[in-house]
Amino acid sequence: MIDKTRLRNGRLFDLIMSGDEAAKMITNGMTVACGGFTSTGCPKVVPLALARAAENASCPKITLLSGGSVGPEVEDELARVGVIVRRAPGTRAAYRHMIEAINSGDIAYYDYHFSHMAQMVDYGFLGPIDMLIIEATAITPDGHVIPTTSIGAAPIYARHAKKVIIEVNTTQPLELEGIHDIYIPERPPRRNPIPIYRTGDRIGTSHIEVGMERINAIVESEPVEPLSKFAEPNEESKRIAKHLIDFFRSEIRAGRLPQKLLPLQSGVGNISNAVLTGLVNSDFKRLEFFTELMQPAVTDLIEDGKVKVVSCSALPPDPRVTERLRKDPERYRDSIVLRPLDISNHPEVIRRLGVIALNAALEVDIYGHANCTHIMGTRMVNTIGGSGDFMRNGYLSIFTMPSTTKNDAISRIVSMVSHVDHTEHDWHVLITEQGVADLRGLSHRERA
Amino acid sequence: MIDKTRLRNGRLFDLIMSGDEAAKMITNGMTVACGGFTSTGCPKVVPLALARAAENASCPKITLLSGGSVGPEVEDELARVGVIVRRAPGTRAAYRHMIEAINSGDIAYYDYHFSHMAQMVDYGFLGPIDMLIIEATAITPDGHVIPTTSIGAAPIYARHAKKVIIEVNTTQPLELEGIHDIYIPERPPRRNPIPIYRTGDRIGTSHIEVGMERINAIVESEPVEPLSKFAEPNEESKRIAKHLIDFFRSEIRAGRLPQKLLPLQSGVGNISNAVLTGLVNSDFKRLEFFTELMQPAVTDLIEDGKVKVVSCSALPPDPRVTERLRKDPERYRDSIVLRPLDISNHPEVIRRLGVIALNAALEVDIYGHANCTHIMGTRMVNTIGGSGDFMRNGYLSIFTMPSTTKNDAISRIVSMVSHVDHTEHDWHVLITEQGVADLRGLSHRERA
Repeated sequence: MIDKTRLRNGRLFDLIMSGDEAAKMITNGMTVACGGFTSTGCPKVVPLALARAAENASCPKITLLSGGSVGPEVEDELARVGVIVRRAPGTRAAYRHMIEAINSGDIAYYDYHFSHMAQMVDYGFLGPIDMLIIEATAITPDGHVIPTTSIGAAPIYARHAKKVIIEVNTTQPLELEGIHDIYIPERPPRRNPIPIYRTGDRIGTSHIEVGMERINAIVESEPVEPLSKFAEPNEESKRIAKHLIDFFRSEIRAGRLPQKLLPLQSGVGNISNAVLTGLVNSDFKRLEFFTELMQPAVTDLIEDGKVKVVSCSALPPDPRVTERLRKDPERYRDSIVLRPLDISNHPEVIRRLGVIALNAALEVDIYGHANCTHIMGTRMVNTIGGSGDFMRNGYLSIFTMPSTTKNDAISRIVSMVSHVDHTEHDWHVLITEQGVADLRGLSHRERA
Repeated sequence: MIDKTRLRNGRLFDLIMSGDEAAKMITNGMTVACGGFTSTGCPKVVPLALARAAENASCPKITLLSGGSVGPEVEDELARVGVIVRRAPGTRAAYRHMIEAINSGDIAYYDYHFSHMAQMVDYGFLGPIDMLIIEATAITPDGHVIPTTSIGAAPIYARHAKKVIIEVNTTQPLELEGIHDIYIPERPPRRNPIPIYRTGDRIGTSHIEVGMERINAIVESEPVEPLSKFAEPNEESKRIAKHLIDFFRSEIRAGRLPQKLLPLQSGVGNISNAVLTGLVNSDFKRLEFFTELMQPAVTDLIEDGKVKVVSCSALPPDPRVTERLRKDPERYRDSIVLRPLDISNHPEVIRRLGVIALNAALEVDIYGHANCTHIMGTRMVNTIGGSGDFMRNGYLSIFTMPSTTKNDAISRIVSMVSHVDHTEHDWHVLITEQGVADLRGLSHRERA
């Protein structure tokens, strides 16, 4: 139920309508931007209403922008009914309709580094934003938005959007207020440093600036958050994790890493989650994460004090997080900073903090090129996402992957990758279940 | 003649010796670092003496590190006589012996982004530095080095070197003092922003910190600086330049670039030089360059006020620059800031300032991958140099190249490049003599 704790300006109540009514505001040819990142914290009701309308009536064709990949309600449903004709900057392998439409050419898709997407819009390189749909915990008296569990590129999209539809998700705890840190970099030629000096630094506001005049609709939203499941770590993943921890220890002994490591970034997926679980079962303490998506495993670690602070652009789709936040909001607001995706992934900050980047690759070749997105070079299965931001700018950049796939039938270490997302110049170490390949200071031939 | 204006501590005179004597200090198995970047400002006498000694006596085998490529005396002569067994991070297509030895596998070569090289050494990733050879205009009373016409990675190498040999180049004007800006970033986890807010900001000292106790030899050096020649712009290059300027004008009209543009980076070579000449014959005024190597054409422009300020890591090998510096030192120290290569190419600063990156490619494919270094995928002809630093982090990243090579027999736009240095995610616009391909917001298929 939407009440005054959620809508803090009386005039906002006049704008409440159903998702179906709001969806009618999205018309043919529009560039529509979505707030949020991953399936949590992105708008759900209006996109689903738009998909229903498109099936039953004339189907508007839109360009869909977001910060990174968003939920299946937005991407996959709209792709299925043919609403999307242009899409950036990322999607997910699991979104079957979206991937099919991209690979068939029905959707013109361009994949940018997550740290570049918002600034491309801010610079005016991708045209005007006709409509922004954004999920909110609450709206301030001035019409500004307190986001929910993710941010994505919403702050810059809100700066440029002609109209804004807000989905107020009443299942999200009001205690989320204060966890966000909204900061928009200035534009060149007069631009100051991003003033983040430590992982947990707060440099902005707790709301996204929208203002009363551009809010066109408010829709109540109560969807249950999806819960992402990761496979239990198998023997192979556990071996990868063990090699990684041994490698960290030897770097500490050699004086190349501090005792408490440096802020960690970790990609998403079963392997990464297994690696993370291995890491947190180790004796490392007071770990810091400077990452784009907080992994589910990290929430337990905040509870038992293993993790000191997490900077990210999205909380995991895990109800335990919101439960714990409700119980002890002060602690969680101290331990977690939710940032816009162009800040969580900013090269300047990643390099300054000395982030250790941990990502998974599909295949790596003997020259050191890595492919993370395309099977056989042309079939898109994944987005480059933030991996380029972190691998290029990390203090240490590490790929983790099993050495084979398809039950050992296909080697992932090949003579030449079929698509290149990371060049040989961009990363340092490869860890498989077989061991550690430390490529720092090695030539092509030695790497091979 | 070395005098007190060059050696400002009396004890330094006791260390003067010949290049042959100093070269004997370089022994088998050493990691030797060279100051400087390109053929100007790098040490010449001691490397040539080492090459002579290696031909006549037992040949030491060394690892040679520098900031970027250095002069032929260092790289190519030492490669010819077999002194170098390991080399990073860059070399030049013109260095026949070096390229042959790399392609045959006699030299283990690793190519890093220029902005990464110094920090790899600072982090201890490439092992200890046994010896640094550096060219100086003068040495301060405390034993610190005032460099000559380039810097490279010398400041961080000087921090780590066990011993230092200094070549004092008495042909370089003392007026160079004050043109350099030496700054070493802190190491994570406690690191502050690089405090460069404008192209010409000075943030460091005018000398490289060495100290009396590590100086092992001082060698007088009087080599004449080489003069690089670029071909006169041909019709094709002029057309590329015209398309570029038209593109800038249309970006200004669209409000996506300020009237006086943004700081420019320009790669090195005939095409880039032609593009630059075209640009400076246009009506743009008070241009700024934030680049790694100052192009010869830029010096004329400082004279007639077309260029306001240049930040770079190397002056062009052009005697007019030093002549003009001698005549009007204050003006040139105001117009030029010589920085370490990891600062001239730093992602943080490039992105903050909104640099427009202009680079040449060997070939570009229909997916947007670009190859700048390898002909046919395996034969190394060039280094990635700073192009990755600038293309990835630029406000606008533009490749310029003729659409064909070998007298129109071979197209440079191919279905798949044989080696990838820049991925599709990293750049925006391709300009050939045929026109402008603006890839912002286009999908793979549309790019093709």
